[in-house]
Amino acid sequence: MKILVLNSGSSSVKYKLIDTAGEHVLAEGGVEKIGLPDGFLKFKRPDGSKGTVELGLVDHKGAIEAVLRQLTDPVEGCIGSYGEIQAVGHRVVHGGEKFAKSVVIDEAVKEMIRQCYDIAPLHNPANMTGIEAMEQLLPGVPQVAVFDTAFHQTMPAKSFMYALPYKYYKEDGVRRYGFHGTSHRYVSQRVCEVLGVDIKDVKIITCHVGNGGSITAVEGGRSVDTSMGLTPTEGLMMGTRSGDVDPGALTYLMTRHGLSAADIQRIINKESGIAGVTEISSDMREIEAAVNSGDERARLGLEMYEQRITKYIGAYAAEMGGVDIIVFTGGVGENQTGLRADVCAPLAFMGVELDLEANKARGEEVVISTPASKVKVVVVPTDEELMIARDTAALVG
Amino acid sequence: MKILVLNSGSSSVKYKLIDTAGEHVLAEGGVEKIGLPDGFLKFKRPDGSKGTVELGLVDHKGAIEAVLRQLTDPVEGCIGSYGEIQAVGHRVVHGGEKFAKSVVIDEAVKEMIRQCYDIAPLHNPANMTGIEAMEQLLPGVPQVAVFDTAFHQTMPAKSFMYALPYKYYKEDGVRRYGFHGTSHRYVSQRVCEVLGVDIKDVKIITCHVGNGGSITAVEGGRSVDTSMGLTPTEGLMMGTRSGDVDPGALTYLMTRHGLSAADIQRIINKESGIAGVTEISSDMREIEAAVNSGDERARLGLEMYEQRITKYIGAYAAEMGGVDIIVFTGGVGENQTGLRADVCAPLAFMGVELDLEANKARGEEVVISTPASKVKVVVVPTDEELMIARDTAALVG
Repeated sequence: MKILVLNSGSSSVKYKLIDTAGEHVLAEGGVEKIGLPDGFLKFKRPDGSKGTVELGLVDHKGAIEAVLRQLTDPVEGCIGSYGEIQAVGHRVVHGGEKFAKSVVIDEAVKEMIRQCYDIAPLHNPANMTGIEAMEQLLPGVPQVAVFDTAFHQTMPAKSFMYALPYKYYKEDGVRRYGFHGTSHRYVSQRVCEVLGVDIKDVKIITCHVGNGGSITAVEGGRSVDTSMGLTPTEGLMMGTRSGDVDPGALTYLMTRHGLSAADIQRIINKESGIAGVTEISSDMREIEAAVNSGDERARLGLEMYEQRITKYIGAYAAEMGGVDIIVFTGGVGENQTGLRADVCAPLAFMGVELDLEANKARGEEVVISTPASKVKVVVVPTDEELMIARDTAALVG
Repeated sequence: MKILVLNSGSSSVKYKLIDTAGEHVLAEGGVEKIGLPDGFLKFKRPDGSKGTVELGLVDHKGAIEAVLRQLTDPVEGCIGSYGEIQAVGHRVVHGGEKFAKSVVIDEAVKEMIRQCYDIAPLHNPANMTGIEAMEQLLPGVPQVAVFDTAFHQTMPAKSFMYALPYKYYKEDGVRRYGFHGTSHRYVSQRVCEVLGVDIKDVKIITCHVGNGGSITAVEGGRSVDTSMGLTPTEGLMMGTRSGDVDPGALTYLMTRHGLSAADIQRIINKESGIAGVTEISSDMREIEAAVNSGDERARLGLEMYEQRITKYIGAYAAEMGGVDIIVFTGGVGENQTGLRADVCAPLAFMGVELDLEANKARGEEVVISTPASKVKVVVVPTDEELMIARDTAALVG
């Protein structure tokens, strides 16, 4: 089945056309600067080379129309007509408590996605724009919503509740939802295929570490806890997000400097994390380079970043009563070999032993623990688009 | 040496008169409702019976005067004259980065304590009131300040820094300080005496769980991480404090309900925790009773409360590369046997094995792990006043 996978952001749309028969990527690319006069489409050719098409000022519908034109382009395209697209899979960020799995989109589903606008004001409306544009451009083609939060809906209440007044949960939906669910689901399933074990029998900790990052405890194939919360700000230290911070520190800063809620939101999401601490960059490759050139603040930032991952692994191992498999994924998790070594070094006491030679691999699927290691440590490059395509095919196929 | 230990709060003063020679408590009690028309002094007699003295409207100086009168009362008192008090030890909540240990109080120390008013606006001014009242009432008697934060000043930067913009650390002192330091120091030292081990050789996790609660990782006798932060709101779920919560959830609630920083501060400190979730009580004994009578929300609150302790133990074990000793202390930690069992049950994978018979003990110093348990688990009733008396005697003796 040929499935178009769409990830619609506020000013961008990313796409992949996937043939689920052999799980091949037929085409991929994205439109950037939607709504600005210099919008453009980038795409990758089958030979790996890249191309660009200037679009000028387009809206989401215009951007997606450009994607469809590109896919059917007589020279650069890969399909003869729109009609070959059998279904569209949409990434939708927030499904609240309404969606515990992927669903075929109908009017009722759209209404429920709209009901989650409050808790995902930046993401869900943008996702909806993509859904509605596609309904107009490919009428009658089935569309599926795949939610970042759905995988985590199996968490028990003791993991998803905050110790805030209960009314904020009941009336406002304030609880842990978690994100990156499609990635955590993909890598937890994939690692079991790689190791030849039944996911029902194992305790897995999946570390999705990229510019954003989250860690999930997966027991018997189900998410039982995850580090992101109501919003993607909680948990690990990230590129520009603070992750966990004393709630009292925020009210202290507000009072001291007369900051508003909007100020704090900007600070903890855009000005914090490794960029805020180091004042160098949000990019871990630049941080690593600075550490190697002797920058003390970069070293501090890196140590904080790594220690938080180690602590979450310890916390989730304790919560599950042990861990059998640790997975690293995401741009940082797949590529920063030094970080993986540092994160795992203190975990020897719980049976984690890294094979430092195997750990040199970057961006490939590889077991990086020694054969004797009680806990298996594995790098699994994530593939959220494939997961969306699979869900879509399964629902409409 | 006869040392008067004082803990001056905003509307109360607690005291203990301790003879450090044999470490006996000669007298103890407290004044409550300072500044209100119905202020009173409670005290315990040597035989354990309790007495009360109505004081009416008194200020801190009047309250401390009443304590001194009580201590020298011809019938109920235990000393002949004020002159027998050889030194006064004060609990001071926040020493910021200025104090890594206890100090004899002079003008320079008082000025530095005042400089910490900003980060401890409720506590430090009250502590200072006690110091100044005592200077007037017992002129020339040496006074010592023992800080809640001092023990944690050994934390490395990777543990005490938040992933916020660096300027908030440099300019505003926003970092993890930690609290309950006197308690964590006392029980970590005491547990080594109980077990006959050298504190330099062991990794200890001390769980101070009372109405407030914090957990500390102690390596070689030094605090290397602790769960409370800039303020005592962070970390564990407490009686009415939220502990850790998604920072994004706070800005969400502020925006949604038009709440101010002061509102949030009240909510996370006074209306959250086990009281906020269960809507029953902040007292763990009442929660336990409600759980036993089948209350589902009480069960949820208890599960959340226990799981957080388990997760912190796991996190700190991972951070230190293992743990040799776990200590429970504080009102809940010393007495709630079920909680200790629940917290430790999932930790079997890291070598924690509880002796359920030994764990029946309440409020006494007892090893509650089995002889075979790789990690020793010990209940050590805390004694912050003794620690303050010891520090005071050592500094002025």
